[in-house]
Amino acid sequence: MPELRKDPILGRWIIIAKERGKRPTDFILEESLSIGGFCPLCPGNEKTTPPEVHRLGDSHQAPNSPGWQIRVVPNKFPALVIEGDLSKEGEGLYDKMNGIGAHEVVIETPNHNEVFSELPPEKMINVFFAFRDRINDLSKDPRFKYVMVFKNFGRAAGASLEHSHSQIVALPILPRMIVSELAGSLSYYKYKERCVFCDIIRQEIKENTRIVCQNDHFITITPYAPRSPFEMWILPKKHSSAYRTQDDASFHALAAIFSETMWRLNTCIPGVPYNFVLHTSPIRSEAMEHYHWHFEIMPKLTKFAGFEWGSGFYINPTPPEDAAKFLREVK
Amino acid sequence: MPELRKDPILGRWIIIAKERGKRPTDFILEESLSIGGFCPLCPGNEKTTPPEVHRLGDSHQAPNSPGWQIRVVPNKFPALVIEGDLSKEGEGLYDKMNGIGAHEVVIETPNHNEVFSELPPEKMINVFFAFRDRINDLSKDPRFKYVMVFKNFGRAAGASLEHSHSQIVALPILPRMIVSELAGSLSYYKYKERCVFCDIIRQEIKENTRIVCQNDHFITITPYAPRSPFEMWILPKKHSSAYRTQDDASFHALAAIFSETMWRLNTCIPGVPYNFVLHTSPIRSEAMEHYHWHFEIMPKLTKFAGFEWGSGFYINPTPPEDAAKFLREVK
Repeated sequence: MPELRKDPILGRWIIIAKERGKRPTDFILEESLSIGGFCPLCPGNEKTTPPEVHRLGDSHQAPNSPGWQIRVVPNKFPALVIEGDLSKEGEGLYDKMNGIGAHEVVIETPNHNEVFSELPPEKMINVFFAFRDRINDLSKDPRFKYVMVFKNFGRAAGASLEHSHSQIVALPILPRMIVSELAGSLSYYKYKERCVFCDIIRQEIKENTRIVCQNDHFITITPYAPRSPFEMWILPKKHSSAYRTQDDASFHALAAIFSETMWRLNTCIPGVPYNFVLHTSPIRSEAMEHYHWHFEIMPKLTKFAGFEWGSGFYINPTPPEDAAKFLREVK
Repeated sequence: MPELRKDPILGRWIIIAKERGKRPTDFILEESLSIGGFCPLCPGNEKTTPPEVHRLGDSHQAPNSPGWQIRVVPNKFPALVIEGDLSKEGEGLYDKMNGIGAHEVVIETPNHNEVFSELPPEKMINVFFAFRDRINDLSKDPRFKYVMVFKNFGRAAGASLEHSHSQIVALPILPRMIVSELAGSLSYYKYKERCVFCDIIRQEIKENTRIVCQNDHFITITPYAPRSPFEMWILPKKHSSAYRTQDDASFHALAAIFSETMWRLNTCIPGVPYNFVLHTSPIRSEAMEHYHWHFEIMPKLTKFAGFEWGSGFYINPTPPEDAAKFLREVK
């Protein structure tokens, strides 16, 4: 079973994947995506993945057989495992617990050659519904505190399979990033009695220099202090702290803006590797006045080196105003 | 002039290197180290770097000419610039200031083919003295709050020049990483009235499962919750919060253990790319009972992807006990 360990100075948690037990000789310094060859995510190979936990498609077909549009399956090599107790314990001054959690793969299309950034809104919406359904289902497990949704696209951004997919991880603790976001937005709220994200949206609409695109329900901006060139945030215009509580009209608008945003990025920098991460409130939390769910899209264009590791600072060679202009002017 | 911008939610600072002004077409997705060809750090090419600010070597030679063992020069493409005022200002709800700072390159050897991990202690010690001298000099500038020292080795770890070098950055604000370390270690100190790092050293010596090597003054361990496989920390055994206050005997012991540590790592995983970062107290601070300076060495063996970006969690496939054993048993 994987082990969760806490750094005693920073409170940072690490997953020690003991069973992988990599030895020095196991590290291939430049891993490559397996291109061509057998794809476990393609139709016809359903039996090579663990049994599906979500499926959208032809209802006449048996589970774990072809005929689907979207499938969600447990990860065959999970970072955390679903079976067991948390059993927190100390080891001298250190703290650890069992690596309990869920790790699932969202297969976004049956078509091996279709990439997410080219999915039309009417297909992309099903990916967003799959995220919502899995969040709702995993939220029932009282051992979990947070459900993370993210995507790695391209080898440089950490993808190890070519077939278009995203990932869902249910965690027994709140990730540091969310803890910091909740604390930062609460501190702003206590001072101003307004949501900082709502204020950002208002200022961005007024200034109109970092807007990439918008529709009635959503806005895509390049944030004022982006870690990466062409970093973008997609935010709902109407205040909401939890992704899973959006209504259907919102999901249609989300698919429309996400599809347009990805098309703009991919047209600007063809084939760019990227990560996106859903930032939403902890599961089972009440609606929060100070927190505002959103997606963050991080193109992988710069290297994260000693300076960033040691400081938590980032160096970005592209001002977000320039990036937004390039993205807006895409034809 | 570069601009420092603060994320209004997380308080994270970003350096916007406006003059680089990279356009979409400027991003080469896989940059490569320029191997062979002209090297601006080699002897004979001193005039191609900005004038040196530190030099060790033949005292009969003119500055900026050959005959040196170590040279420190300002970075030709600095992330921050030395000339100007901080001029902090707001932009609506956002905060920014001028990108004032220093960015220097420590050329660790005149020999283009000599790598840091193979430097014998009697050469390596001069690198550590250069760090100390530059920290002391930069600390005189009242605009600066922190001096970071780090090294990127290998393309995957962010190095853009092949010739062995490390970097020094003086910053007008405390980096988030140090703020978190100071806060975490202070909170432990308030509870226990002991330094958490001293307690870690005591527990590691007692358990004897994560020690890589040690001498009278220093110990190298694989930390209990490492972000990366084969991550190592080198700590002084005697409590001290500031690198620059070490005596000469300590520097000899530091060079001896650092040289042995790097030899062990490089023998275990030949040619492994890595970063190291000096963690030390803010400049001009009093001696701190709760903080303990140290080096962190991070081999670049895993990818930092959506999960790490979104959570602040890390997945590590090599338990530190296994890594320490491999490193100890190197022949």
